[in-house]
Amino acid sequence: MALIVHKYGGTSMGSPERIRNVAKRVAKWARAGHQMVVVPSAMSGETNRLLGLAKELAPSRKDSAYHRELDMLAATGEQASSALLALALQAEGMPSISYTGWQVPVRTDSSYTKARIESIDDKRVRADLDAGRVVIVTGFQGIDGDGHITTLGRGGSDTSAVAIAAAMKAAEVLIYTDVDGVYTTDPRVVPEARRLHSLSFEEMLEMASLGSKVLQIRSVEFAGKYKVPMRVLSSFTPWDIDINEEAKSGTLITFEEDEQMEKAVVSGIAFARDEAKVSVLGVPDTPGIAHQILGAVAQANIDVDVIIQNVGKEGRTDFSFTVNRGDYQRTLDLLNEQVVPKLGAEEVVGDDKIAKVSIVGIGMRSHAGVASTMFRALAEENINIKMISTSEIKTSVVIDDKYVELAVRALHKAFGLDQAGAGA
Amino acid sequence: MALIVHKYGGTSMGSPERIRNVAKRVAKWARAGHQMVVVPSAMSGETNRLLGLAKELAPSRKDSAYHRELDMLAATGEQASSALLALALQAEGMPSISYTGWQVPVRTDSSYTKARIESIDDKRVRADLDAGRVVIVTGFQGIDGDGHITTLGRGGSDTSAVAIAAAMKAAEVLIYTDVDGVYTTDPRVVPEARRLHSLSFEEMLEMASLGSKVLQIRSVEFAGKYKVPMRVLSSFTPWDIDINEEAKSGTLITFEEDEQMEKAVVSGIAFARDEAKVSVLGVPDTPGIAHQILGAVAQANIDVDVIIQNVGKEGRTDFSFTVNRGDYQRTLDLLNEQVVPKLGAEEVVGDDKIAKVSIVGIGMRSHAGVASTMFRALAEENINIKMISTSEIKTSVVIDDKYVELAVRALHKAFGLDQAGAGA
Repeated sequence: MALIVHKYGGTSMGSPERIRNVAKRVAKWARAGHQMVVVPSAMSGETNRLLGLAKELAPSRKDSAYHRELDMLAATGEQASSALLALALQAEGMPSISYTGWQVPVRTDSSYTKARIESIDDKRVRADLDAGRVVIVTGFQGIDGDGHITTLGRGGSDTSAVAIAAAMKAAEVLIYTDVDGVYTTDPRVVPEARRLHSLSFEEMLEMASLGSKVLQIRSVEFAGKYKVPMRVLSSFTPWDIDINEEAKSGTLITFEEDEQMEKAVVSGIAFARDEAKVSVLGVPDTPGIAHQILGAVAQANIDVDVIIQNVGKEGRTDFSFTVNRGDYQRTLDLLNEQVVPKLGAEEVVGDDKIAKVSIVGIGMRSHAGVASTMFRALAEENINIKMISTSEIKTSVVIDDKYVELAVRALHKAFGLDQAGAGA
Repeated sequence: MALIVHKYGGTSMGSPERIRNVAKRVAKWARAGHQMVVVPSAMSGETNRLLGLAKELAPSRKDSAYHRELDMLAATGEQASSALLALALQAEGMPSISYTGWQVPVRTDSSYTKARIESIDDKRVRADLDAGRVVIVTGFQGIDGDGHITTLGRGGSDTSAVAIAAAMKAAEVLIYTDVDGVYTTDPRVVPEARRLHSLSFEEMLEMASLGSKVLQIRSVEFAGKYKVPMRVLSSFTPWDIDINEEAKSGTLITFEEDEQMEKAVVSGIAFARDEAKVSVLGVPDTPGIAHQILGAVAQANIDVDVIIQNVGKEGRTDFSFTVNRGDYQRTLDLLNEQVVPKLGAEEVVGDDKIAKVSIVGIGMRSHAGVASTMFRALAEENINIKMISTSEIKTSVVIDDKYVELAVRALHKAFGLDQAGAGA
C-alpha cells in the first residue's frame, strides 16, 4: 500500500469512453489500498484546437504578453480533462477531487510556454489523500510568482507527474501511454525489437534524446534527479487486468545502479533521421573558435546536436556539427554570411541527407570494445561512417540517411538484442 | 474619458471572426481614451459542450463534490475565450491582459454552480488599466474562501460585469448581446413594439422576471443595488460605428428617479407562457394555511410565481398560485396526496393552459386608473381574467393561453406604446 502517481496521455483521455476506462483503472488501484494521484493530459486534439483558434486571431509573436495568453488558453485543456476524470471517478463510487496547477500550487518560473517547476506544495493534495480521495492534478501547468498561469511546454504533463511524485516521495510514477514500453529499438524498423523490462534513467535519457519519443526528456531528467522510479506502460490493456500483472508490465526506468550491473552491455539502438551535417573547413586553430561558430548559431535559435572538432594541422582545423534538417539552409546561410568572413575560414560544406544511429547502454562503462563491435558491424554492411561521437553510455555515428534501417538492424543483431533475455 | 465595462455574450464571441470584431470594437473605445474592462462569455456552445461531456461521464447528483467539478470544468470556457480576446486585442496593437476570476480575485461563497459574489479586489485590474492595458476578466466565475473555483450559474457573466463595474465605480457597463435593446414588448408578437431608450432598473427587474430574457435578473438587482448605469445594446452593429452614436444606442437601465418622472405611465408589456394555475378550494380559513400549502410545494423544489388568496366565506377560502407548466402534474399530485388530507380542503383544481400578461411601469406609482385601463382593454377583446396580482410598478393578469398575443397587442395599443415618443 503506497502512494502512486498515474499519468495518462491525451490519447488515453481522448473520449468519454476512454476517460471512463481511466477512472475504472484508477479506482482499481485505489481499491487495492494505494493512495492515488492522477495527472491527465488534455483530451487528444484539444490543445491543438485551442492553439489553432489563437493562430487564427493573432500572428505568432515573441513577447511575453503573447505567450502569457497562450498559456492562459492552453491550460484550460488540462483543467477540463481533470474535472471530467474526477467526475468519472465519482461516478464509479470513488471520492475524487481535481486541482489545477495554481491550486496545488505547482510553482514555476515565468517562462511562459516553457516554464520550469520550482517547487510543489503537497499539503493540500496530501490532506485529500488522507481523507480517502483520489486527487487529480492538471498536468502541463503551474503558477508563477506573480500569480500568472504558466505551462511547461509540449509533453509537460510527464514532467508534472514526475515532479509531483518527487515532491510527495511517491513509490512509483506510472506513465500510461499508447505504447507498451521502451523497446530495444523501433519495432517498425526491426521486427525483432523487444520491450525492455527495465533500464536506467541515464539510458532512458539517451534513448529519449536520440529519438525514442516515448517520454518527455525533462521528465526523465527530473526522475533521475529526484530518484523517482518511473514506469512506461500501455493504457490500452483492459482496465480490469490483474493489478499485480499490471504493476510489472511496461518498462521500469530505475535509478538503482546495482540492478543495472546484471544487464546487457547495450540496452537499445536509438536513431534520429531529419538531421543535417554542417562543417566549417579550414578554421584557424585558435582558442575560442567553437564559441564563435556555435554562438552565432545559438543566437539564431538553432539547436545543435552532435559537435565534432578534430585535431588540426598547419594551424587550421575542421569544425562539424549536426542540426535539424529544417534548420539546414538557415544554418548554411548564417555561417557563410557571418561566421566565415569573420573567422577567415576556408569554406562551409554540408549534407542534409544524414541520420544518426546510437547504441545506448550503461554497461558500456565497464566493457571495452563496444564501439569497435559497432564499427565492425557497420563495416560488414559497407556503411560509411561520417562522424563519431561518444559519451560514457552512448556511442553515436552519423551515416547516410538511406542506410539507417540497415544500420539499426545490423546493430540490433550484433549486440544480441534480438534474443529474449538480453537487454532486459 | 471614463472607466467603461463591456460585456459580450457567447454569440458575440462565437467564432474567431466575431472575436476579432469584438477586439476591434473594444480597441475603438480604448483609443477614444476610455479605460476598458471587458467581460466575455464562453464561445457559444462551449459551455454546453463541456457539460455534455460531464453528463456522459457522470449522472447528475446533488452533492457539492459533484458540483465543484462541474464548476472546474465549465469555468474553462470563459478562461479560453478571455485569453483569445486578449490575443485578438494584442493583434490589433492594443496592449491587453486577461484574468480569471481567481486571479482578480472575484470572491464568492461556496455554492458551486450558483455562487454569489462577495467581494472583488480591483487592485490588480486597476494597475493594468493605469499601465494602458485593456483588461479582460472572465465572466461567470470566481473563487471561494478555500481556493475552489466557483461559477455564478447560467447568464452569470452579466452579473460578473455589473459586479466589476460596481467595484470599480465604472461610469457605465455595456451589455453587448444579440438584441439591440429592451422593447415595449416582444416584437414577434407586436410588430409595432419599440425599443425603449431607457427604463428604471425596477422596471427592468419586472420585465426580466416576467419573461423578457434580455438580462440575467441577478445582474439587474446588482446594478440597482450599487447604482451602476447599465446599457443593453447590440454586438451586431458594425464595429466601426461612430462611438458617440454607439454610446447612445440600445437601452439604458438607470437608477435615476428624476429622469423617470418624465416617462410614460407604462413602459412595457411582459408576458410568460408555460405557466399553470393551481387552486386549493374550500380550505379552512385559519392562520397558517398559506404556509402549509406553499411549504410543501417549496420543499419539492417547485417554483411558485403568482399567489392569490381571496377573502373567505363560511369559514373557508380558496388559495391559488401559478407554477411552471412542467411542474403542473407534480404539483397536483403533491397537493392531493399531502396537503388536501392534512388541511381538510375540499378539492384541488387546476389549468395548465394559461399565460401571464403584465404591464410594467414606474409611472404607475403616481397614476391611478392604470389597472382599470388594463382591464377595460382586455374586456373589449372579450378576454376573461382568471387571476389578478399587482405590485407598485406592475399589474399582472392570468388569462387563457390562447389569448396571449391578442392581450399583449391590445395592451400595447391601450397604453400608447405603439407611438414613437411614448414609453421612452
